[in-house]
Amino acid sequence: MAALTGPKQDRSRATRQRLLEAAVACLAERGWAGSTVAVVAERAGVSRGAAQHHFPTREDLFTAAVEYVAEERSQALRTLPTQDRRAVVAALVDLYTGPLFRAALHLWVAASNEEQLRPRVTELEARVGRDSHRIAVQLLGADESRPGVRESVQGLLDMARGLGLATLLTDDRARRERVVAQWTRLLDEALG
Amino acid sequence: MAALTGPKQDRSRATRQRLLEAAVACLAERGWAGSTVAVVAERAGVSRGAAQHHFPTREDLFTAAVEYVAEERSQALRTLPTQDRRAVVAALVDLYTGPLFRAALHLWVAASNEEQLRPRVTELEARVGRDSHRIAVQLLGADESRPGVRESVQGLLDMARGLGLATLLTDDRARRERVVAQWTRLLDEALG
Repeated sequence: MAALTGPKQDRSRATRQRLLEAAVACLAERGWAGSTVAVVAERAGVSRGAAQHHFPTREDLFTAAVEYVAEERSQALRTLPTQDRRAVVAALVDLYTGPLFRAALHLWVAASNEEQLRPRVTELEARVGRDSHRIAVQLLGADESRPGVRESVQGLLDMARGLGLATLLTDDRARRERVVAQWTRLLDEALG
Repeated sequence: MAALTGPKQDRSRATRQRLLEAAVACLAERGWAGSTVAVVAERAGVSRGAAQHHFPTREDLFTAAVEYVAEERSQALRTLPTQDRRAVVAALVDLYTGPLFRAALHLWVAASNEEQLRPRVTELEARVGRDSHRIAVQLLGADESRPGVRESVQGLLDMARGLGLATLLTDDRARRERVVAQWTRLLDEALG
């Protein structure tokens, strides 16, 4: 299987990656209604035929894109130092206030009304959600066998999601930082 | 000004109200892309001309609709008994998991990419957000002069928003209730 690591496969993988990154940027900027395979192909500098070879449908492209970037972010999170709980909480909240969350939100909201998208995004969202929870537990050094700890961490991720939504129309960074600082204190007590 | 309370004005007010309620239901079910004045007029059993007399543009209709229902919900909240903090938190969270939140979310996400909608929805969202915060403070008997109390309440509302988002694709009521119970305990400590 040496060919799988040959120059042709490298090019194919690079093309795929360019398409996925362009798809996330497109979704974040233009929403689901403005996001098509053609628009993304042009943005990525890839022919439409090549784009459709990698991703036969619009749904394939955009669910793969959100999943790809979510995995990249998870990888980055795993390398965070875990000594400083406040920094960990801030990094987790940041996950929900950047372009990835914005892209995922558009996909999520579109899926709630589109039958073709709904089952795939529901499944993707559950998987990404479980992954985020697992990483958060690990980074926070949370002992989930203690009563309330699991729910405290879940509530933190729900709050982060709500903060991300608040950021969609207004940059409310100052307010967000105060809220995060206070809930980090409360979480600290809950986690022990 | 007796005419303002006459039967003609009553009919006009009733028509307006039917349009607003139909608009919220339409937005929640079909999203922004599927929501037009014509669709709402038909749903409300109102002629398109009459609908356009009340709401000249699509933006007028849907921002008014979200505002109208938000005010109805605020009125309902103000009548809640405030003895039981857990019941208050549950009622606040419920605000973010029903059709109104779903409708508002569609409008919100659409506004992030549509210049015609964005300033109006940003202003509406800020107003509704301030109102929800004020009601929450009052119902929870929170003393905002104490350090951290304001941010604790804000974080609770952000969490409620995040829980509402999680509900969009999956009915996760059981998980939500456990998270809310735990966060109510943490909030209780913070509010004293």
